[in-house]
Amino acid sequence: MKQAKGYAAISQDKALTPFNFERRTPGPNDVVIGIEFCGVCHSDIHQVKNEWGGSRYPMVPGHEIVGKVLEIGSAVKTFKVGDPAGVGCLVDSCGDCVACNQQLEQFCSNGFSGTYNSFEQDKKTPTQGGYSNFIVVKESYCLKISPKLKLSAAAPLLCAGITTYSPLRHWNVSKGHKVGIVGLGGLGHMGVKLAVSMGANVVVITTSESKKEDAKRLGAHDVIVSRNSNELQKHASSFDFILDTVSAEHDLNALLNLLKIDGKMVLVGVPDKPAPVSAFALIGGRRTLAGSLIGGIKETQEMLDYCAEHNITSDVEIIPIQSINEAYQRMIKGDVKYRFVIDMQSLGQL
Amino acid sequence: MKQAKGYAAISQDKALTPFNFERRTPGPNDVVIGIEFCGVCHSDIHQVKNEWGGSRYPMVPGHEIVGKVLEIGSAVKTFKVGDPAGVGCLVDSCGDCVACNQQLEQFCSNGFSGTYNSFEQDKKTPTQGGYSNFIVVKESYCLKISPKLKLSAAAPLLCAGITTYSPLRHWNVSKGHKVGIVGLGGLGHMGVKLAVSMGANVVVITTSESKKEDAKRLGAHDVIVSRNSNELQKHASSFDFILDTVSAEHDLNALLNLLKIDGKMVLVGVPDKPAPVSAFALIGGRRTLAGSLIGGIKETQEMLDYCAEHNITSDVEIIPIQSINEAYQRMIKGDVKYRFVIDMQSLGQL
Repeated sequence: MKQAKGYAAISQDKALTPFNFERRTPGPNDVVIGIEFCGVCHSDIHQVKNEWGGSRYPMVPGHEIVGKVLEIGSAVKTFKVGDPAGVGCLVDSCGDCVACNQQLEQFCSNGFSGTYNSFEQDKKTPTQGGYSNFIVVKESYCLKISPKLKLSAAAPLLCAGITTYSPLRHWNVSKGHKVGIVGLGGLGHMGVKLAVSMGANVVVITTSESKKEDAKRLGAHDVIVSRNSNELQKHASSFDFILDTVSAEHDLNALLNLLKIDGKMVLVGVPDKPAPVSAFALIGGRRTLAGSLIGGIKETQEMLDYCAEHNITSDVEIIPIQSINEAYQRMIKGDVKYRFVIDMQSLGQL
Repeated sequence: MKQAKGYAAISQDKALTPFNFERRTPGPNDVVIGIEFCGVCHSDIHQVKNEWGGSRYPMVPGHEIVGKVLEIGSAVKTFKVGDPAGVGCLVDSCGDCVACNQQLEQFCSNGFSGTYNSFEQDKKTPTQGGYSNFIVVKESYCLKISPKLKLSAAAPLLCAGITTYSPLRHWNVSKGHKVGIVGLGGLGHMGVKLAVSMGANVVVITTSESKKEDAKRLGAHDVIVSRNSNELQKHASSFDFILDTVSAEHDLNALLNLLKIDGKMVLVGVPDKPAPVSAFALIGGRRTLAGSLIGGIKETQEMLDYCAEHNITSDVEIIPIQSINEAYQRMIKGDVKYRFVIDMQSLGQL
């Protein structure tokens, strides 16, 4: 059982290929998950291609991991064999800094351990992700997934779900608020579902006329096609909150001008280059531009429980691991509604 | 009494020159103030030179106006002849929009009436400012100035004071907070005095080594010379709040990186060009970049009362109106500690 199968990028020039690697020997506080599904996040592509710099190979990507508990360490109390379980973007942190003490492990000042392309807290053992048949993870970073949730469609909650849930909660989006969701992709479609469930009046802001119908199907109350400046003008100074999920370059000032007095816009996408921000756009309404990064473990569990209660999952297209390189190509073109999820049973065909 | 004396820019190519103009006949709700002092704000220069576009001439600048009440309309209840009184950046607003109903007249959605280079609410009568011997203003836009405050040094409170007070209050700066004040000029030196009075641990962030001593004299607890990247590094992720008063181009991301988790940076200066903002700098600590614009009339009165209680005024250099063009030149070079204030008695020598 120490040999695990996965798909890994061997170097930035190579596509993902079958790969066998050692997995960590489970300790007393570890949970071993047999991975059934893993979501495909755009950040997987950035890291495989080393677009953010500092990528380490071989790399097994994947941080939207769901499956069943196969084995537990002797000290594990909250999971038992057979439980559905998940792992998101974090597998460890220092546990002792200002951020960790606020249960905001994603901001750990000593550096959290990312699920892959990162190091364990010893700062030397590489971590490997979810395009694999197993993962060994500390109990405290292992998430419970309600049996009410369809496992394949729940996988993207571990990153796309928490990334959108956390800012909506932190900035208290609720009934009666007019909320804009910029971009209707993996993150955006979760933002729509979550904001609608919180009672907000949700408006999708998209560059694509073609997404109007689907936005409405997902629950949006209105759609602005941002290429049409008269549509933007019609909604000027009217939004309480805007969640901007777009990582391509785009005009932040046109979006800021949609906010009412004291309105807030939060970035969760990361464009390659800094974006020009007009001081006038902020000052002219005491507006806020902020950023948000995934969420801590406690809040991720809260989000999963919330989604189970409100029957919220991702719209997914299930693929075998053998299609991963083609899936990356389609994601780059925006050709997915709305998240690819790998069925890990397909690894048996390695 | 209908003829008023002032100094006006006749066109953007001309310096300020002596000028006689009609003043409004006082109505029942009006207060006539005999102006004793008027502060010189950098925005006066921008507007005289039409650097923001849309300037209208002849223009009598000045929106840091203090003096004594000379005459009151029949319905005026809260002022009597002889009272010290002031006028800031606003002289009217619609009184009936979402912003006005929140007493945030500076964001009036129908457009506030600026004290000069603007129109009354009829949208056709030009307003003229404080480089003059009189101003006629609605009682509800006329501010009370405590006799405890030295009138000449209180003038800059009407713009520099409220511009810095409002964000410090709105974002709840208080005891124990580490607060950065970026730029030590007219706004910055008020920011230091106010933040210190609120109990914050105040750090001035300046490009000028030479301002260190003066920052300490004004009450700052520490100074960062931002050209020294090791000084910035030493304070990384440590500030609760930063008030950025600089209107020259500068690196916002280096400042954002000084904020701790959930830290907030507020712009009150308006650089000519949009500034590049890195999404990483915001996302990496759920940081906020916001803007703030002067303050409403109610808050301006609260600020004046607060300053009287805490004995806070501006550091001023008093000049005769005849020196105004030279003063502008010196302000452009940053050669003033920290605000020029015109002694309007000098107008008698017109």
